[in-house]
Amino acid sequence: MSRRNPLRDPRDRRLPRIAGPCSIVLFGITGDLARKKLIPAIYDLANRGLLPPGFALVGFAREDPGGRSFDDLVEQAARDGARTPWRETVWRRLSAGIRFVPGDFDDDAAWHRLTATLAELDRTQGTGGNHAFYLSIPPGLFPVVVDQIQRHGLASEDEGWRRVVIEKPFGHDLASARALNAAVEPVFDRHNVFRIDHYLGKETVQNILAFRFANQLFEPMWNSHYVDHVQITMAEDIGIGTRAGYYDQIGAARDVIQNHLLQLMALVAMEEPVSFNAESLRIEKQKILANARPAPRLDLHTARGQYVGGWAGGTQVRGYLQEEGIASTSTTETYAAVRIDVATRRWAGVPFYLRAGKRLGRRVTEVAVVFKRAPHQPFSSHDVEELGQNVVVMRIQPDEGLTLRLGSKVPGSAMEIRDVSMDFAYGGAFVESSPEAYERLILDVLLGDPPLFPQVEEVELSWKILDPVIAHWTKQKTIDTYTAGTWGPASADAMLRRDGRSWRRP
Amino acid sequence: MSRRNPLRDPRDRRLPRIAGPCSIVLFGITGDLARKKLIPAIYDLANRGLLPPGFALVGFAREDPGGRSFDDLVEQAARDGARTPWRETVWRRLSAGIRFVPGDFDDDAAWHRLTATLAELDRTQGTGGNHAFYLSIPPGLFPVVVDQIQRHGLASEDEGWRRVVIEKPFGHDLASARALNAAVEPVFDRHNVFRIDHYLGKETVQNILAFRFANQLFEPMWNSHYVDHVQITMAEDIGIGTRAGYYDQIGAARDVIQNHLLQLMALVAMEEPVSFNAESLRIEKQKILANARPAPRLDLHTARGQYVGGWAGGTQVRGYLQEEGIASTSTTETYAAVRIDVATRRWAGVPFYLRAGKRLGRRVTEVAVVFKRAPHQPFSSHDVEELGQNVVVMRIQPDEGLTLRLGSKVPGSAMEIRDVSMDFAYGGAFVESSPEAYERLILDVLLGDPPLFPQVEEVELSWKILDPVIAHWTKQKTIDTYTAGTWGPASADAMLRRDGRSWRRP
Repeated sequence: MSRRNPLRDPRDRRLPRIAGPCSIVLFGITGDLARKKLIPAIYDLANRGLLPPGFALVGFAREDPGGRSFDDLVEQAARDGARTPWRETVWRRLSAGIRFVPGDFDDDAAWHRLTATLAELDRTQGTGGNHAFYLSIPPGLFPVVVDQIQRHGLASEDEGWRRVVIEKPFGHDLASARALNAAVEPVFDRHNVFRIDHYLGKETVQNILAFRFANQLFEPMWNSHYVDHVQITMAEDIGIGTRAGYYDQIGAARDVIQNHLLQLMALVAMEEPVSFNAESLRIEKQKILANARPAPRLDLHTARGQYVGGWAGGTQVRGYLQEEGIASTSTTETYAAVRIDVATRRWAGVPFYLRAGKRLGRRVTEVAVVFKRAPHQPFSSHDVEELGQNVVVMRIQPDEGLTLRLGSKVPGSAMEIRDVSMDFAYGGAFVESSPEAYERLILDVLLGDPPLFPQVEEVELSWKILDPVIAHWTKQKTIDTYTAGTWGPASADAMLRRDGRSWRRP
Repeated sequence: MSRRNPLRDPRDRRLPRIAGPCSIVLFGITGDLARKKLIPAIYDLANRGLLPPGFALVGFAREDPGGRSFDDLVEQAARDGARTPWRETVWRRLSAGIRFVPGDFDDDAAWHRLTATLAELDRTQGTGGNHAFYLSIPPGLFPVVVDQIQRHGLASEDEGWRRVVIEKPFGHDLASARALNAAVEPVFDRHNVFRIDHYLGKETVQNILAFRFANQLFEPMWNSHYVDHVQITMAEDIGIGTRAGYYDQIGAARDVIQNHLLQLMALVAMEEPVSFNAESLRIEKQKILANARPAPRLDLHTARGQYVGGWAGGTQVRGYLQEEGIASTSTTETYAAVRIDVATRRWAGVPFYLRAGKRLGRRVTEVAVVFKRAPHQPFSSHDVEELGQNVVVMRIQPDEGLTLRLGSKVPGSAMEIRDVSMDFAYGGAFVESSPEAYERLILDVLLGDPPLFPQVEEVELSWKILDPVIAHWTKQKTIDTYTAGTWGPASADAMLRRDGRSWRRP
């Protein structure tokens, strides 16, 4: 800790903790996520001086990347995706500890090669017997890989720590999530399992906690006495891109509501944790998820839809059913909206409206806490016609920050009131730039610092909330549609209108 | 009201009410205030189409303005001070109704000329027998002028309404204020007396009420459970300029605390009025002023000072005792600070710190509501070292608007908290520009709309609050000093330090 790294700006208070010696075994290193996010994040961590001198990265994948060498692939991924400047010395030092183990995951010979490689790295790179297994592979392969890790003695912590990192989807319903957990739990202790929800690594998500609990303002009003409802939105302007095969099996609800949006809801709604360690946070998030359920009338309080051709960002785009690899009979939802009720003293009677969709008006993720109208206003009704409700908007991405919507006097001799906004832009306020979510989360894995990773209970409770909604939708033969570039199907608007409310246009 | 004025932008919702036929008799029309503020405001009102066709302006002053004609003086004042574009047609129409009556205020012949002039204007300009008497003269002259108005039958409302407008100072202590009121009250009904506190005409002052009562946020926290204290600051960077003779008799406390700052305090602290009419507002402001008193230990909870030479705005400036016209033995305060306690259920235990001064660090008027610290923070003490208290700052002038001071997470892997600001700029949010305070107030006089004018009870209660403070100071033979361009005497800092607080640096 007392080591000084000349690459680090002393004013830079980002990521001040440095991991101890260790290696990462990256399963699926030739995949999209590894190349676009994980390898660049590892380079950036090295460049910031946050990786230990004794560090190694082992890629394990089915075969050599067609045509070019593994080393080229990794270097190119780092160069293409790095957010920090390229430094040859950093790269040379990092690449000295990079290895590739080709082979099928069920091929014992390959696992012997992996075991030998890790032992070699412990000797030559000083990785100290500490290994993190990062499963950047389809969940169907988790059981075989975890089983192999155990069979080859790689899960034993006799010689150092052993951690496993898994990426969503954590199952596609409660039963499959339980099966997945049942495969991992006998091999790794719960505190050694790191479930990546990269949304939880975002600064603005963590700032929800700072905003709520570091301030005197807001928390006294953060309850059903003052809050009318909450809207949590994750809107994308893009379509499904090249993810057709994956996405058509999943749909919007499973893809992001089950994980990102329910986690955001838990952070917004939870009681103050006794501290910010993983266990305290889990206890509070779990209390919310255990008390949350979809509104009872699923026909009235959910909505789903599929985009049809339209205009997005100035170009004409095709509909979901015309996307490559999507069957013309698909009823997978690209838009999902659900009303969640949280049965606690603090939140009873305050609906949480969650919506997610592709090909919507613009890309934005936000949490909007909409307050009740003032109980009485001593203004004449004529003067307040434009007045809405106070809203606190936590802008997760892009344009990270905070917006407050307030009534203010319109200049002039009448006491006329109109809504205005106050803004705080996260980017403008700090010299420090936000670390990329994966940087933060990979470092947390290496440090063994788990507060930002959802625990098994949260995953299962989230499926418990969503399963009845998906079951209700599955019974239906048809699906609503919405034009690409709009804000979802008419049924989603009707769903809020029934409650006397309307969706924000973010 | 249905008349359409081609000069008015239909989007411009400023000052939508138009006065009925009337004349203004302006006593002291050759004085500073009349030339710099009142005549330009009248021109601007005409230019905006807010004066009636039947409008006249009569100047009454001791003598012709030396050298040039009265007409020249008025036109020049309008041209120099107008905030709206110069339009010859508007000016020609306005000036057709402008008259000048020279003479001493105790000269009956002059009053006969005035009476005849008003009668002529009723006939030729259609002013309808409605007259407003604007006393832009030293308060010592009020009794004689009011007496003459009565003796010449000009206060009688038999043929139209009659109103009197008086400018501060409304006395220099409770006794003199009562004497002044005693001179006016027998002649004019209370609803016909308009006391000008031009601060109350400012948009941002009126916005205090909109902010508090048009929103659900804030009002539930606007009390001693959540508010630690309130700071009301009126800082000027200028010295006393050419006002030596006046200012040295008055000092900072009488000059602005008795009126502007106590009125601001009343607006910030009062309960919700049942409506925004004059009587409802007076009732609520009066409740605050009647329950407000200086903190009992005047030696510990007040401070005063006089500026000595220093630097202001890049130039060297002289001290108060070196200003032209100030005796070298003067102990008049150019800085005053007072702690006021408001003995109500809502505010008991929440000090209101009021301060005003000349030659301070910069020109700013603001109300800062400082909230208590959060009762508990689940962050480690190391991580919150920079964290202060939440503050809502209502910026009255310049940079009119609202600022919120909040704790936010510093980007990085630790849960480190730092204070940031959210801003709302009044100027940026509306197409409408703010009407100048005098425009607003003159129009309100002509409309007979009195909510923004302090009533006799408020004036007397304000003196009741301030009299003991001034009496305490008068007993002292010396006065503290502060260097021009700083934020007041050391005793003012000590005064807050004793309470475990400190002044904001605005």
